Amino acid sequence: MYPLVFQTDFGLVDGAVSAMYGVAYCVHPDLKIHDLTHDITPYNIWEASYRLIQTLEYWPENTVFVSVVDPGVGSDRKSVVARTNTGRYIVTPDNGTLTHVLRMEGICEVREIDEHINRLPRSGDSYTFHGRDVYAYTGARLASGIIDFEGVGPKLDVKDLNILPIVEPYLEGKAVHGTIDILDVRFGSLWTNIPRELFLQTGIQYGDRVSITIENETRTVYRNIILFARSFADVYVGEALAYVNSLDCVAVAINQGSFARAYNIGTGNSWSICIEPFKGF
Amino acid sequence: MYPLVFQTDFGLVDGAVSAMYGVAYCVHPDLKIHDLTHDITPYNIWEASYRLIQTLEYWPENTVFVSVVDPGVGSDRKSVVARTNTGRYIVTPDNGTLTHVLRMEGICEVREIDEHINRLPRSGDSYTFHGRDVYAYTGARLASGIIDFEGVGPKLDVKDLNILPIVEPYLEGKAVHGTIDILDVRFGSLWTNIPRELFLQTGIQYGDRVSITIENETRTVYRNIILFARSFADVYVGEALAYVNSLDCVAVAINQGSFARAYNIGTGNSWSICIEPFKGF
Amino acid sequence: MYPLVFQTDFGLVDGAVSAMYGVAYCVHPDLKIHDLTHDITPYNIWEASYRLIQTLEYWPENTVFVSVVDPGVGSDRKSVVARTNTGRYIVTPDNGTLTHVLRMEGICEVREIDEHINRLPRSGDSYTFHGRDVYAYTGARLASGIIDFEGVGPKLDVKDLNILPIVEPYLEGKAVHGTIDILDVRFGSLWTNIPRELFLQTGIQYGDRVSITIENETRTVYRNIILFARSFADVYVGEALAYVNSLDCVAVAINQGSFARAYNIGTGNSWSICIEPFKGF
Repeated sequence: MYPLVFQTDFGLVDGAVSAMYGVAYCVHPDLKIHDLTHDITPYNIWEASYRLIQTLEYWPENTVFVSVVDPGVGSDRKSVVARTNTGRYIVTPDNGTLTHVLRMEGICEVREIDEHINRLPRSGDSYTFHGRDVYAYTGARLASGIIDFEGVGPKLDVKDLNILPIVEPYLEGKAVHGTIDILDVRFGSLWTNIPRELFLQTGIQYGDRVSITIENETRTVYRNIILFARSFADVYVGEALAYVNSLDCVAVAINQGSFARAYNIGTGNSWSICIEPFKGF
Repeated sequence: MYPLVFQTDFGLVDGAVSAMYGVAYCVHPDLKIHDLTHDITPYNIWEASYRLIQTLEYWPENTVFVSVVDPGVGSDRKSVVARTNTGRYIVTPDNGTLTHVLRMEGICEVREIDEHINRLPRSGDSYTFHGRDVYAYTGARLASGIIDFEGVGPKLDVKDLNILPIVEPYLEGKAVHGTIDILDVRFGSLWTNIPRELFLQTGIQYGDRVSITIENETRTVYRNIILFARSFADVYVGEALAYVNSLDCVAVAINQGSFARAYNIGTGNSWSICIEPFKGF
Repeated sequence: MYPLVFQTDFGLVDGAVSAMYGVAYCVHPDLKIHDLTHDITPYNIWEASYRLIQTLEYWPENTVFVSVVDPGVGSDRKSVVARTNTGRYIVTPDNGTLTHVLRMEGICEVREIDEHINRLPRSGDSYTFHGRDVYAYTGARLASGIIDFEGVGPKLDVKDLNILPIVEPYLEGKAVHGTIDILDVRFGSLWTNIPRELFLQTGIQYGDRVSITIENETRTVYRNIILFARSFADVYVGEALAYVNSLDCVAVAINQGSFARAYNIGTGNSWSICIEPFKGF
């Protein structure tokens, strides 16, 4: 019996997620089911992909994640189960949800769900709720050991998985360039795709001031000098800072404020950030 | 030990739901407690009734649901436990919460909670939180087998249950008439009370164009021709469609948009919908 | 194996809480983890303190609460575990989160977390997510019995705990004075710090009319005559009432409306309330 973890963009306002729970408990009453989040922005596959990589490694080996952000439900997009290099499973539509996991954790094998076997009995007339009828059901069967990985269905080629476009961070002289991957929604922090190790190649150290430029396409949205700090406690309340976030990437925030709201910052490949050492006056 | 599933309009922002969980675990530490939703619109008994029927059948037999949307707490409304024809239990104030379950799943027996036995010890001075003191406590006793159904209290007549008024869908020539029961809140879809089987008597088939009219009282709010599709993937992003939802009723949506917000559509018996085959030009 | 209950201001929109769950399950797969709330207003220590006292007593003895509202993460604020007089544990930064528990339930012993032992292995480079790396990890070790209370770290003096300022309610003639501690957010009710027993010393009884004055600093925000009722069912829909809430303190509400929104009422020590018997015209 392995942990089963659900992620969707369904919200918790209606009964959709609870129906998924119920289906899983009917598969096996001893399952332990948990949530990653159900507040993925509707249809936002990028966010689903990112939240998986944010949490995956903290769960035990063999944990089965079920991620349902599925704008293409009813199309010919495939339903798959991936096994990561570190031994977790992800049940998901093959629509880009595996982008970050493939890139950062690695996927050793992927199988297509055979819906003749792995589909809730008597659900054949519903074309709109595969989260309940296919993904929760298959995830529960895998987590409870009723099927093993081979029992999911035929093997696919990992190279054929659908992947979202990713922009690579890079160093140019002493400046590091990246994109704003996602927000720490609640606190309004910007999370970049710049890993700590790449960032440190600029020679910047904790306590240094850095020059930050944020652009959306070609428009400069923010440009200022802020502190590179170990944590929020190193700056005043209301002061901006750069820091290393809980995913070991560079982030930008305002202590007890919202950087994203203060400067109307968005996320995605069109939002670029450049950080360089500040030389002083 | 049967699953215990909570539904309320309390939200999750404060400690109310957690206090209910705590009370249940004090009754029995091995209970498995889950949520339907805690985001029922405050005081909205109709919604509570609908969410039960949306999820009930996906949970195992003998699951105990506790539903607390209770605008009449402290009045003489009765506290009851119903047993459905399919063998699930619902612990609830008798205020209309059982409307859809009675109608669509059927209730074979109902008992009034005897608060001399089934009330959290030393909670007698609290008149405002029966969710914690009576309903969670009784539900936990029933789910853990400390009491059986007879132990709830005296039998009532199912016919005396309080039921909300329901408008029946009907066929008139080739046109089918119904009401908009509820929203799929997150995605802004309209869920009607028109079952697929009744709808198909219009002769409409997947791929046909249909004429839709939505009225609030006597005012026409929406009138247009849209596709009757198997799933969202059959129309363009931003295009409207009619489809069969996960409860096997007809629904209306915009692919990746919000139909409800686009046209300011509400729910309830004053919101009627008429669907008929489109004859073409 | 004791229940483990999480409270944070992280929200459930991203993966932060799920990472805490994962860390705990890696400590022990048989743990039972639950939520108090994750919707504490960001950085609001007062609210975190209040929600603990609202729920603590309803959970079994030895329950381990982990509360992470931590504006000082990365500062020299201490990380502690308190044992209450009634035998529950609270894992938290020592920043005032223990204020209400100390005052109303009592704390018999407090220990500082020794991070050399009680910190997620290989998390030493993260300075911003002690909720995951220290608090969830330590709470899970304590709840699963891997460490006992002594194993947390060295004993501190309970008298040295950081405590938020509290204003005491008092009686002045027949009038009782208090502050508005917090809102029942979902229903817009005001929860005061006036206990029922103190309130009844005014001679007011259920069914009496009372005169209510609410002031913010020196500005009078509300003044009116309302009913002291057993429950909402005793007044009309839309009518205001005073009542005894589920924490056995006096509260003020509008039946099926929001008192807080109707009169723009806030919370905290600057919001005072005075209730006295109404003598009639």
